Amino acid sequence: MVQLGANRYGKAEVRVLRVARGAAAGGGDLIRDWNVSTSLSGDLAATHLTGDNSGVLTTDTQKNTVYAFASRLGAVEPEVLGLDLAAHFVTSQPQISRARVTVEEYGWDQIGDAGHSFARNGTLTRVARVVHDATGGASVVAGIDGLTVLNTTDSEFWGFPRDEYTTLAETSDRILATEVSARWRYRAPDADWAAAFAGARQALLDAFSQTYSYSLQQTLFAMGSRMIAEVPAICEVRLSLPNKHHYLVDLAPFGLANDREVYYPGDRPYGLIEGTALADDAPDPGPAWD
Amino acid sequence: MVQLGANRYGKAEVRVLRVARGAAAGGGDLIRDWNVSTSLSGDLAATHLTGDNSGVLTTDTQKNTVYAFASRLGAVEPEVLGLDLAAHFVTSQPQISRARVTVEEYGWDQIGDAGHSFARNGTLTRVARVVHDATGGASVVAGIDGLTVLNTTDSEFWGFPRDEYTTLAETSDRILATEVSARWRYRAPDADWAAAFAGARQALLDAFSQTYSYSLQQTLFAMGSRMIAEVPAICEVRLSLPNKHHYLVDLAPFGLANDREVYYPGDRPYGLIEGTALADDAPDPGPAWD
Amino acid sequence: MVQLGANRYGKAEVRVLRVARGAAAGGGDLIRDWNVSTSLSGDLAATHLTGDNSGVLTTDTQKNTVYAFASRLGAVEPEVLGLDLAAHFVTSQPQISRARVTVEEYGWDQIGDAGHSFARNGTLTRVARVVHDATGGASVVAGIDGLTVLNTTDSEFWGFPRDEYTTLAETSDRILATEVSARWRYRAPDADWAAAFAGARQALLDAFSQTYSYSLQQTLFAMGSRMIAEVPAICEVRLSLPNKHHYLVDLAPFGLANDREVYYPGDRPYGLIEGTALADDAPDPGPAWD
Amino acid sequence: MVQLGANRYGKAEVRVLRVARGAAAGGGDLIRDWNVSTSLSGDLAATHLTGDNSGVLTTDTQKNTVYAFASRLGAVEPEVLGLDLAAHFVTSQPQISRARVTVEEYGWDQIGDAGHSFARNGTLTRVARVVHDATGGASVVAGIDGLTVLNTTDSEFWGFPRDEYTTLAETSDRILATEVSARWRYRAPDADWAAAFAGARQALLDAFSQTYSYSLQQTLFAMGSRMIAEVPAICEVRLSLPNKHHYLVDLAPFGLANDREVYYPGDRPYGLIEGTALADDAPDPGPAWD
Repeated sequence: MVQLGANRYGKAEVRVLRVARGAAAGGGDLIRDWNVSTSLSGDLAATHLTGDNSGVLTTDTQKNTVYAFASRLGAVEPEVLGLDLAAHFVTSQPQISRARVTVEEYGWDQIGDAGHSFARNGTLTRVARVVHDATGGASVVAGIDGLTVLNTTDSEFWGFPRDEYTTLAETSDRILATEVSARWRYRAPDADWAAAFAGARQALLDAFSQTYSYSLQQTLFAMGSRMIAEVPAICEVRLSLPNKHHYLVDLAPFGLANDREVYYPGDRPYGLIEGTALADDAPDPGPAWD
Repeated sequence: MVQLGANRYGKAEVRVLRVARGAAAGGGDLIRDWNVSTSLSGDLAATHLTGDNSGVLTTDTQKNTVYAFASRLGAVEPEVLGLDLAAHFVTSQPQISRARVTVEEYGWDQIGDAGHSFARNGTLTRVARVVHDATGGASVVAGIDGLTVLNTTDSEFWGFPRDEYTTLAETSDRILATEVSARWRYRAPDADWAAAFAGARQALLDAFSQTYSYSLQQTLFAMGSRMIAEVPAICEVRLSLPNKHHYLVDLAPFGLANDREVYYPGDRPYGLIEGTALADDAPDPGPAWD
Repeated sequence: MVQLGANRYGKAEVRVLRVARGAAAGGGDLIRDWNVSTSLSGDLAATHLTGDNSGVLTTDTQKNTVYAFASRLGAVEPEVLGLDLAAHFVTSQPQISRARVTVEEYGWDQIGDAGHSFARNGTLTRVARVVHDATGGASVVAGIDGLTVLNTTDSEFWGFPRDEYTTLAETSDRILATEVSARWRYRAPDADWAAAFAGARQALLDAFSQTYSYSLQQTLFAMGSRMIAEVPAICEVRLSLPNKHHYLVDLAPFGLANDREVYYPGDRPYGLIEGTALADDAPDPGPAWD
Repeated sequence: MVQLGANRYGKAEVRVLRVARGAAAGGGDLIRDWNVSTSLSGDLAATHLTGDNSGVLTTDTQKNTVYAFASRLGAVEPEVLGLDLAAHFVTSQPQISRARVTVEEYGWDQIGDAGHSFARNGTLTRVARVVHDATGGASVVAGIDGLTVLNTTDSEFWGFPRDEYTTLAETSDRILATEVSARWRYRAPDADWAAAFAGARQALLDAFSQTYSYSLQQTLFAMGSRMIAEVPAICEVRLSLPNKHHYLVDLAPFGLANDREVYYPGDRPYGLIEGTALADDAPDPGPAWD
């Protein structure tokens, strides 16, 4: 016999541009550019087993709810949108015991001083992710995706074990580059979201720039621990760092030296380093990472 | 104070084409086209905390090991490659307590009867995923990605709750389409991998085609339970099914009827339905899904 | 002073699924899965210079027209849809002197014998592209995108010039692989489109498989000339063939031989070979390639 | 009989990171992050017709040449790299009569004041494209890709013709958004490349921001003509502007007003507006756009 195991459902990638007219400091417009995904779980056996949808708040309704809340809340921090939406689904639908709302936010820079013109800033994607559990309440994870950083020096890699398949040479100076995917958990669902995000981003960049690195793992832990140290609202940081290898080109056949000047970035394969920094007094995560 | 939490590292997307010359039934070549990712975990605190790499089997070595094993093993089923690689890392490196090896395999069809000409078949990607744990041993998960299927009828959707944000009309006939991402767990790390894969794929397609559907959740569970029923080596199936909405175009403004003939597929947003079918007697997964 | 130069505008990527219920041989459904782009040019100076839109048939209207024609025409060959749409725009809008309609068609295979279940076949994308000119009439180009083919042998590469930057070794046996992008021009806007497409595809595959190759350029011309020879309705073939390099892995450091068995496919850079085969008696293309 | 028509070949997407150590104003490093593609044409019939490669400077050699020139030239403007490479191929290979070199350059911003830390700036990709013809000499085209801009107001769209397929409502206030792909031709292969690029980019942004728009075509021509007016070295601008539609969400079913506040961006279909601004005294382009 076969039973139903873990399940959830929702609407993915609801795109919203929220314009707050005249709300900027100088009287111009503010915009928030969001990509919202919702996911609900609870007592959903009937639809799986018999196609009885009496407990299925449709994903179309979830989409409409995103639009309505974006309208009511205004151009708020993405964590606020996530908190209100996730609470709404759990409190309004008795059969839903847990809701996860993920908001990706894309940044825009003003063009000139017209107050209504913007250029999309592709440096990073901001992420806010809220889980609201019927019994445990809300938890908030924030993050960064797509932030590519590079150090031209201050990175060594040596002292690793050599087995029969090892051909890599040790190096005392290499390019270190990665595309940061970071997620951090807040101690409580209540913080100065904008300031915490800015602080986390700055701590991550500072740690990357200022760490003399012997491995990407070391740089990873330096990032995570600095974020926790500098932003007290954060209790845990998870990082996923592809090692974007840059290989020194062999120019000797052409009679040219190459003293760390000409590299080719490789696409695949790449190293992938994943790790966690955790405050000693971090509260239990509950379903925060669900 | 900040401590090191869960971590792992490896080489991602090592591409390999393995040619077995003359190994095909008619004397032609066999090819296996793989994308292999390895990930190791264990006692890796030193590199994170101090940059001491004495326990870090480099990701470059992991890549070399993939090539060497592909050479030694031949054009085997991808599960065999994963099992041997994962066991190798754990048994040869005392500080590594767990290895995960994921193999994506891309299919190719013969062109004509030359025996050496092939066209890539883009219908699906086959996945094999092995976790070898120092104490628990090996577990095998297989899967399918990118298989897009569509029913032109035999799909209804009605009887769902209506709240203040619900505008969706009920329907007794809609297009049902999804891009299947499936993963299934084997009871033991020993099976007829090719036959089990073929059986799982066929059961999934049959269930999709033959289920009169009242919700994508119902179709999901029908797929998973049929795979378990028809392939005894499988004890658990996890499916992630985006609902690729097809909307009936309103042709009334042009004086045209549209009796389920002209649809436009939407890109975003999409529903996302995730669920699990589990055999009643499924053994504990241990780290199989790690 | 600055003047307005060449310009055109249209709607890109109008997705349409056309279902012809009960139209298949056995009584099941036929489906056509299209991605249609329209582009119009003519006397459009006013909107560019002053924002006067009195001559601008909106791109929204173009989209609606695509849906309406898909409804009226049925599950026809994509060339037919392109011919009728392109003619419509030019003949109904006096200020439009030329219309280009491009249709991408995605293939689907039946699942089982239910008659309403399909799986998307990702082997290639079929392309049809019609230009209708007010004075010159219609011309038709068809094509294939995304068809990846590979020969495990029968490919050499040697005899090339060596300059101060040349390091490549000659080879008498290499993998030859490419992702075919082909476009071919028909002599007249009237052919058995399905048969011509099938014949062109088969001639291309046969030429790839049966040509003992000394360069990808040679294979390219063999493909194009065979397509013209075998499908009389075709007078010109343009091919764009990325050389998907497969490098033999050096296994010597591990004490392993590698007699053409283990390769790694590279992502970038890749060779890119572009060329044309033209029938001696090909008519003037006019704006066919516009 | 079938003859060989137009053809060319080269190496695409040669990735290069050029580090100029200590070359920045404050003593830090400068970096140039390039993606270089080369394409050669000339007397290449032999390889197509018989596989005789005696005139085929290999694409591998072309790749090596890119690396060597990047080494010799340093962290120069991308136009300089393109000019030197294109001239080299034509002057050193008698059978090559024309070379095209395209350089994409990705921007990086400094992190802090370390002098060796950078974050990739994803706002736009800079393009430089040189064609060197054996008889006509060099011509230079530069460009921008991936610059996404948006106006929250000052955009109307009305006065367009209405036919039987027109359903679009007129609007006196809409979001105007596009992802700019621009290419501009220089009068001569000699300019202050950095200043010209900066001026062109600024003129484009200013025109987008300051034009009260009645159509995207009008905005397009305003951009192009302003670039020509403000950067005298430019004689022609070609723009390809997808109209990234933002639709006002209908919130009435939820009892909410929506006075230009909540929009959903659509993915497909999109308008595509292409046009050219040309200085009255622009010299003949020759093969500049080849």
